[in-house]
Amino acid sequence: MYRNLSRSLQTLHVCLLPKKGFTLPKTSVLNTLRPTSLSSSSRCLSTNSGFESEGSNQSRKSINYAAYASATGILAAGVAFVTWCVNKQEVAHCKQKRTPGSSVDKLPTYTTEDVRKHNSLKSRIWVTYKNGVYDVTDFVASHPGGDKIFLAAGKSLEPFFELYGIHKTKEVMEIVESLRIGNIYDTKPIKIEDAYKNDPERSMALTVNSEKPFNAEPPLSLLADTFLTPNSLFFVRNHLPVPVVDDKMLKTYQLEASVFDKQDTKPKHVKSLTLSDIKRLPKFEMDATMQCAGNRRKEMSQVKEVKGLSWNCGSISTAKWTGARLTDILKAMGFKDEDFNKKYIQFEGLDVDPTGTPYGSSIAMEKALDPNQCIMVAYEMNGLHTSKKLIIKFMILNYYNVLRTSAADHGFPLRLIIPGVVGARNVKWLKKIVLSDEESHSHWQRKDYKCFNPSVDFNTCDFDTAYAVQETPVQSVISEPSASSSVSADDGYVTVRGYAFSGGGRGIARVDLSLDGGETWLNAELDNNGQSPYKSWAWTLWEATVPIPKNKKKLDLVCKAVDSSHNVQPERIEGIWNLRGLLNNSWHRVSVKVEG
Amino acid sequence: MYRNLSRSLQTLHVCLLPKKGFTLPKTSVLNTLRPTSLSSSSRCLSTNSGFESEGSNQSRKSINYAAYASATGILAAGVAFVTWCVNKQEVAHCKQKRTPGSSVDKLPTYTTEDVRKHNSLKSRIWVTYKNGVYDVTDFVASHPGGDKIFLAAGKSLEPFFELYGIHKTKEVMEIVESLRIGNIYDTKPIKIEDAYKNDPERSMALTVNSEKPFNAEPPLSLLADTFLTPNSLFFVRNHLPVPVVDDKMLKTYQLEASVFDKQDTKPKHVKSLTLSDIKRLPKFEMDATMQCAGNRRKEMSQVKEVKGLSWNCGSISTAKWTGARLTDILKAMGFKDEDFNKKYIQFEGLDVDPTGTPYGSSIAMEKALDPNQCIMVAYEMNGLHTSKKLIIKFMILNYYNVLRTSAADHGFPLRLIIPGVVGARNVKWLKKIVLSDEESHSHWQRKDYKCFNPSVDFNTCDFDTAYAVQETPVQSVISEPSASSSVSADDGYVTVRGYAFSGGGRGIARVDLSLDGGETWLNAELDNNGQSPYKSWAWTLWEATVPIPKNKKKLDLVCKAVDSSHNVQPERIEGIWNLRGLLNNSWHRVSVKVEG
Repeated sequence: MYRNLSRSLQTLHVCLLPKKGFTLPKTSVLNTLRPTSLSSSSRCLSTNSGFESEGSNQSRKSINYAAYASATGILAAGVAFVTWCVNKQEVAHCKQKRTPGSSVDKLPTYTTEDVRKHNSLKSRIWVTYKNGVYDVTDFVASHPGGDKIFLAAGKSLEPFFELYGIHKTKEVMEIVESLRIGNIYDTKPIKIEDAYKNDPERSMALTVNSEKPFNAEPPLSLLADTFLTPNSLFFVRNHLPVPVVDDKMLKTYQLEASVFDKQDTKPKHVKSLTLSDIKRLPKFEMDATMQCAGNRRKEMSQVKEVKGLSWNCGSISTAKWTGARLTDILKAMGFKDEDFNKKYIQFEGLDVDPTGTPYGSSIAMEKALDPNQCIMVAYEMNGLHTSKKLIIKFMILNYYNVLRTSAADHGFPLRLIIPGVVGARNVKWLKKIVLSDEESHSHWQRKDYKCFNPSVDFNTCDFDTAYAVQETPVQSVISEPSASSSVSADDGYVTVRGYAFSGGGRGIARVDLSLDGGETWLNAELDNNGQSPYKSWAWTLWEATVPIPKNKKKLDLVCKAVDSSHNVQPERIEGIWNLRGLLNNSWHRVSVKVEG
Repeated sequence: MYRNLSRSLQTLHVCLLPKKGFTLPKTSVLNTLRPTSLSSSSRCLSTNSGFESEGSNQSRKSINYAAYASATGILAAGVAFVTWCVNKQEVAHCKQKRTPGSSVDKLPTYTTEDVRKHNSLKSRIWVTYKNGVYDVTDFVASHPGGDKIFLAAGKSLEPFFELYGIHKTKEVMEIVESLRIGNIYDTKPIKIEDAYKNDPERSMALTVNSEKPFNAEPPLSLLADTFLTPNSLFFVRNHLPVPVVDDKMLKTYQLEASVFDKQDTKPKHVKSLTLSDIKRLPKFEMDATMQCAGNRRKEMSQVKEVKGLSWNCGSISTAKWTGARLTDILKAMGFKDEDFNKKYIQFEGLDVDPTGTPYGSSIAMEKALDPNQCIMVAYEMNGLHTSKKLIIKFMILNYYNVLRTSAADHGFPLRLIIPGVVGARNVKWLKKIVLSDEESHSHWQRKDYKCFNPSVDFNTCDFDTAYAVQETPVQSVISEPSASSSVSADDGYVTVRGYAFSGGGRGIARVDLSLDGGETWLNAELDNNGQSPYKSWAWTLWEATVPIPKNKKKLDLVCKAVDSSHNVQPERIEGIWNLRGLLNNSWHRVSVKVEG
């Protein structure tokens, strides 16, 4: 269904993330429903509505629906009503008191046929949600996902909201209801297909941040226990439903690659390799840490709210990856030197959004071709073949769910591994490679995963000129003791442990630990598993056993790492705060009580 | 003379930088001269001495002459009485009131022959300074330069102090006088050869931090005017006298290379290339920024004193280097693959210390062999050949001094360029390459240019286990307006400019500028001269022209850069403070008055 919708809408383009956000125009259809002065507010405050109009006309005129660009990190392009952010103060007049989509007295009534006619900018764009009819025309220009908003034109929002469960927040529903124009006459329950019905089962040990799409992290207390993270505990960061890769598909599965120039109508030099072809290439094995750009977003939100999944410190894990080097694959495909003159190499996964657009990323060609960057396409994760044979073996051993997790959630049958680069570029379920002079057009490459200075908000951000996050900065975290724990003064000593990691293969030169909030420091013992400082693709675990200072009722533990380039973690979040809550690598602080 | 001294002392080794510093033992010869109780302090307080013994016996017992490891950045190994740091409180009883080296009444008198006999640990180590005789035996173990202290055993300190003029500070002389045991009988002025007599003339525009060895930086206001720094303004960081490279030497000059294992008595596989050989290799050209590890040390000292040259923000410059790739040179020399299995590649310059030990550095072999690291041996700097022919040409043009500067101060005839790596590893006057499983044994590789956590002092530092500084962290500086300047409110706008740079070839993704001390931020315009984010070997210049906020009496300008790995500069110096004052890359702050 999504694909059909997308075909008819492919040519429509609207401005993304406007600098000034979305302002309701005076001439809006909405104005026929929304009071232009306090005295007429009764029209909005219908008996059943529960809507309050607290604002003045002045405030309503300046409602800014600052586009929030998949700001949750989940929502992104791909669906019509991607999340958007709201200036809460300015829409305070529309505080929701009724159930979203319920009938509202004194509003016009429309049939589904009426709604269907309003499916373009010319005819205005109406959508439905349960019993409600909404005119979203004036929101279109502010929609972060651009033309994806047209997917629901003349139709119901419900399938899209179902796809991204996180849409169903109070804030989003307030926005939707602020665009209300009527009730639907012939409402009947819409049968919504669960796009996530084929998602695999997961370990119960994971802490779930979002069910649809699935995003979860291991408990911090388990994370740094082992150098390699067990597959069942490896954090999961999905942007879309897990694609189904069944036996039939596996038999014909091919990794495709081509060259594409802007002026081309179709890709050139199309090449492909089967899974068997790839497995016949020289085997390359590497321990590498994967880290989500949103790791530690929760702490950043505590300083000033950011939009996105509220990751704690666990959206980072390490695995031993086995596969073939990307350079070997490109060579085996038979590309010529001139093909490598392109500036970028784009990657696409099997996971697609409702328009059929795959998840995608890109990196600079010069990085892709550098053998020292160790970029690979993995078909094993921690020694577990993602093959049917092994699935059967593991089924017998009752490890079926564990393996399904590693195979399905982590990119079965092929995952791109760009070590030292933010997880979002490490495309899972890798299907396609494109050599191009342009960065990937994927929303996640161009309109997400970019940082801004702390003063930039969704009204002033310019994703087009911002630098796409690639390598990650130096990071360290205390995994033990936990913030809610206490230590016994009688023990005399406390053992503090954690992980440290830097992007680009840079090793960890030092981890400094403080027990007094950063007044004094000591060195932690490092275990980097023998990695070179220039190819430290995996984290360094660290530990320090230190005397508990006397007469202290609590310990203010702080850690900060120094990488092999002597880059350091920033002391405070304020200086690195950014609207998407990315790359929080500030000093990690954990306060624990001292008892006895 | 220095070489003779060194020969007889080569086998002596002492502990460097002891954890607990230097404690005067009770049984020291010094105790025969220094009171063990306040009541007998009169022995020290002789009429002419001017020495006061204010401390108790207790305090004297714990005098810690924490070794200070060439802490000035100049002093380093290489001479017997390298600078060392003093716990001022603890030596308060020895505050100097007399002229160092002057005769002290009631102390024994020795002949130079007496002194000469005390030239080993067994016979104890005596030295002279002018009229004074000193027993330095118990300081030996604490001496940062290790066995270099034996250079002066049984002899005068004066030639060494002359070599490193900065030794002649009040603090150092206090230490020396605290070791006083007598007067010299047959004193006569020692003729001291000026080791720096052959140093070139330099541009008067440079701000000199140290004359001997010569260390100077360009004025900050000129620094970011041009992408390439004129040779005459390029900062100069010399650790030793500039070696004389005359016509005769040039004719026979060869870059030597060999393999050396610990068990070897002499180097293996010795190879060499003449200058002509090197100039016949494929020409490699690169714009690269050189930065001293001590850049911005002055600011760090303002937070808490550090030892070293008080560099402002100008020990950084950029040049276009022309030469041959290191990998091409090694290949042309005919090394075999097994030679490259060594862990390190060591470099030595023509500049030698009084023992004949050259300045040296080393980097990991895997970095040296990576062509993407663009390591080269330069024979041109900003297009100026460092050849005699050109010197003559420029003499005619009266640019002689300018060229002499570039040729002599910057490594004529060959300089190693390891872009993105701290200046100290970019060996000047390159003479020798050694492939080895060990890091360079140079003092500057092993006992200097290493960072520690902010709580580590010279009593607790362990240079042996610390990580040698290589790539530098992200940096940015405001070059205009200057701190002492003012802007006119009538102008309406202020233009702020500066440089930004990160090590390892990482480009600059963003420079944030604040006018209000870091409360709010805006983006500066960047000019990186078209460099790739993965091979940004040179700095990025930046500029922002911004409205002067109304009703402000001063602007608290702050800049902070983000590199292509999203590493950031630390907000405060406190968290990166280190005893050697290295790698200060904290937010750069400049406050200017607003007039009118």
